[in-house]
Amino acid sequence: MQLPSTPTTAAMLAIGDEILSGRTKDKNIGHLADVLTMAGIDLKEVRIIGDDPHLIADTLNTLRRNYDFVFTSGGIGPTHDDVTAEAVAAAFSLPLIEHPEAVARLTAYYEGRNLPFTEARRRMTRTPEGASLVDNPVSMAPGFRVDNVFVFAGVPAVFEAMLGNALSQLPAGQAIASVSVECPFGEGDIGDPLAAIQKLHPGVAIGSYPRFDGQRYSTQIVLRSRDAEKLATATAAVEALMAVMSGR
Amino acid sequence: MQLPSTPTTAAMLAIGDEILSGRTKDKNIGHLADVLTMAGIDLKEVRIIGDDPHLIADTLNTLRRNYDFVFTSGGIGPTHDDVTAEAVAAAFSLPLIEHPEAVARLTAYYEGRNLPFTEARRRMTRTPEGASLVDNPVSMAPGFRVDNVFVFAGVPAVFEAMLGNALSQLPAGQAIASVSVECPFGEGDIGDPLAAIQKLHPGVAIGSYPRFDGQRYSTQIVLRSRDAEKLATATAAVEALMAVMSGR
Repeated sequence: MQLPSTPTTAAMLAIGDEILSGRTKDKNIGHLADVLTMAGIDLKEVRIIGDDPHLIADTLNTLRRNYDFVFTSGGIGPTHDDVTAEAVAAAFSLPLIEHPEAVARLTAYYEGRNLPFTEARRRMTRTPEGASLVDNPVSMAPGFRVDNVFVFAGVPAVFEAMLGNALSQLPAGQAIASVSVECPFGEGDIGDPLAAIQKLHPGVAIGSYPRFDGQRYSTQIVLRSRDAEKLATATAAVEALMAVMSGR
Repeated sequence: MQLPSTPTTAAMLAIGDEILSGRTKDKNIGHLADVLTMAGIDLKEVRIIGDDPHLIADTLNTLRRNYDFVFTSGGIGPTHDDVTAEAVAAAFSLPLIEHPEAVARLTAYYEGRNLPFTEARRRMTRTPEGASLVDNPVSMAPGFRVDNVFVFAGVPAVFEAMLGNALSQLPAGQAIASVSVECPFGEGDIGDPLAAIQKLHPGVAIGSYPRFDGQRYSTQIVLRSRDAEKLATATAAVEALMAVMSGR
């Protein structure tokens, strides 16, 4: 179900063998989805792939051409399996450099903590040439932006901080308003009349999400639209259906 | 980091506007990842897309050609926004039918519960012609398999039951053994020596996963291999590194 108008679109590329092996359970997808929805930006696609520089570069090139913005998570730490920075540089055919501002920040950060600025840690200063940094208030090593691609860390606390710092760089979208209607019936009971309501209200996307408590199904019906009036009209129709079915 | 040998590969396609909007937080990806890893099958890629039949069909055609198996979640319920069955039929250029066995099962199921077998509920009997059913002990409406594609429900309890019922249809893979080494140091401290160890042990994939407790980073180092002897040798090298760094 497509909503009318052409909002800003986004994709996410989550990078890491540990997500695909099940060892790490991703928490960034849901967070990004929440934040973009609030910002009025449509997250259209998410991909999760492993720590393979060629695959990362190819996938990124597909996504950055198909969507207005791309957000990546993971693979920008200090170890040998952190290959995202070089993959992003390859995708844009840009040289990979040690970003001077990132070097300055990390030099000061580790000096202040009496920690050696190892070769491994220097890896975290690498960006494609011309990238702008995205601040990391949690542990200093920055994310970065190249064109329409934001490159963030995979650790959720850091991902969330970087996303928060980058939000002001995104266009103010026209947020989708949504209304949720609790439905005590299963989808099988409401599917036919709900489909009829959907047909009568093309400017509103009506979704139904089944819940199963171990014994019975119930349904959450969610109506979404960028048009407040249409949303109210369709919501009234769904609520009327609930009233009729409940014998009220 | 590629492991040697050519194991069975898989991809997952999670379908649903509600995941991309953040309303529903996916739980099936992590579960599938865990189960496939235990089964010795490599999950190589995950995609999440919305309830768009053309996009589902196109994406499915890409994935089913690139990987040995594909698992989908979501979009096989009774409502108008459940479009996965028709999309899978389109991807395979097969007619969409009401599967006779599914009709028989659901007829009996709803009769036994004194519930009407509505048009909406009949949608859940639709499969591409020639599909084999995957049992759903939770709420009866089956999943199905066409060629190398397994089509499962999105409700986690049902997804997990369907996956469990389909596992016997998958080849017995050579499971990857893994060893986890707790490391009290951040990745910046261990990145350089860990990279050196990785170079010396090409038959073992060494990953490092940072943890941040709000104050300090520590690291979980995970070694994975299909060769027990190589795994033990590389693990000993990592443990020796930990001992040296801890001053033991």
